[in-house]
Amino acid sequence: MRICYVVAMVAEAKPFIERYGIEEVKDFFAPLPCMLYEGKVGDLTLDVVLNGQQQGSDLIGCEAATMATLSAIQRLNPDLVINSGTCGAFCANGAEIAEVYIGNGVMFHDRRVPGDNAWGTQSLGNYPVWEGSRQLAKTLGFKMGKVTTGSSLDMQPCDLDIIQQNGGELKDMEGAAVGFVCSLLKTPILYVKSVTDLCDSGAETFEEFSKNLSRACEALKVANERVIDYLKGQISTN
Amino acid sequence: MRICYVVAMVAEAKPFIERYGIEEVKDFFAPLPCMLYEGKVGDLTLDVVLNGQQQGSDLIGCEAATMATLSAIQRLNPDLVINSGTCGAFCANGAEIAEVYIGNGVMFHDRRVPGDNAWGTQSLGNYPVWEGSRQLAKTLGFKMGKVTTGSSLDMQPCDLDIIQQNGGELKDMEGAAVGFVCSLLKTPILYVKSVTDLCDSGAETFEEFSKNLSRACEALKVANERVIDYLKGQISTN
Repeated sequence: MRICYVVAMVAEAKPFIERYGIEEVKDFFAPLPCMLYEGKVGDLTLDVVLNGQQQGSDLIGCEAATMATLSAIQRLNPDLVINSGTCGAFCANGAEIAEVYIGNGVMFHDRRVPGDNAWGTQSLGNYPVWEGSRQLAKTLGFKMGKVTTGSSLDMQPCDLDIIQQNGGELKDMEGAAVGFVCSLLKTPILYVKSVTDLCDSGAETFEEFSKNLSRACEALKVANERVIDYLKGQISTN
Repeated sequence: MRICYVVAMVAEAKPFIERYGIEEVKDFFAPLPCMLYEGKVGDLTLDVVLNGQQQGSDLIGCEAATMATLSAIQRLNPDLVINSGTCGAFCANGAEIAEVYIGNGVMFHDRRVPGDNAWGTQSLGNYPVWEGSRQLAKTLGFKMGKVTTGSSLDMQPCDLDIIQQNGGELKDMEGAAVGFVCSLLKTPILYVKSVTDLCDSGAETFEEFSKNLSRACEALKVANERVIDYLKGQISTN
């Protein structure tokens, strides 16, 4: 069984890469900037694909996530993609900083094509998640929530409207792009998301994100160890 | 010389495909939905890559454009990518319906990462365009304008702010995603954009877009014939 993590930022993946001691496969995706780390965890092949950098910072957002996911699936053919990273969430839903959620759905909240047309539906996306997501969350005691994705860190009224109309709980910047590619290539996808900021707390988002990033990423590492142990158990019982 | 058009919608490409009688290469990108049409125009190999469909309509937007451009460059290795399609423009800049522009720059207008950080710059993008773009526009008598890209058909105040602050003139839904991939793979890109709607006219965008689509696409075909004749001339004089 081969599992492929698709992760935007080095900060999000580093604690996890170090925990498993997996090694970089240099220039695997060259000339694309994406990076591959690969190793074995028991019978399981563990890949971690990072977007890489452009213009002096880790590539974030939906175009980079599309590129990384497409390249990862085409080159590695994983049995399961896991999009793991940080997100915003809502006090109103009981979310707390560094809490880890499993996604039970995924869509875009900033692709608006108004009017009565098929592009409106396509633009929202609503892609399938791995059918084992619910059982995993139940067994490991994680909360679940709907991931909604946009290309911006801030929250505009038009974004909040779409999030609220669609029951969005976990606001990120890559999830739906990863899900879009997985939907086209029929690769199952699991979302593991850790909260860096509370969208309805009144705090300034970039400040809150920066302050809580390392704590949220540490929680993400601990959660992902449990996810991997669970998936290893699935293999041995099959 | 190989030229590869990357086009979102069938409606945008059809007049052009029919004009040159180029043929579909079935399932070239399978299992991805992207479609390839290929033919010769004199010494020039002409590829047209379309996004294909999902959920019952032609794929539009930045994730599909990223997928199509990445697949096109990796599989076809063109000397020049041309992103040709429709856009919104501004009466205030003297734009008219079905007028064709050449892009002199490209950026995103809906990827906001506020605060003093490198992600803000990266999110705006500002990718290079083909260095021959200006001479082509001058020789053929096309106006030039800066392409700005977002994932929505509507115009929110936050989008308009970024467009105005950065001198944006041609509002589309794919250009910067195509430019992002071209920048990573160092493939030159030319933008040929035809106006379907005027963002500051007060008219409802989707209605105006639908009403003017076929006229704008016909203008796009005529413009692209002139572009191709120009590029053929460049080959024979080199």
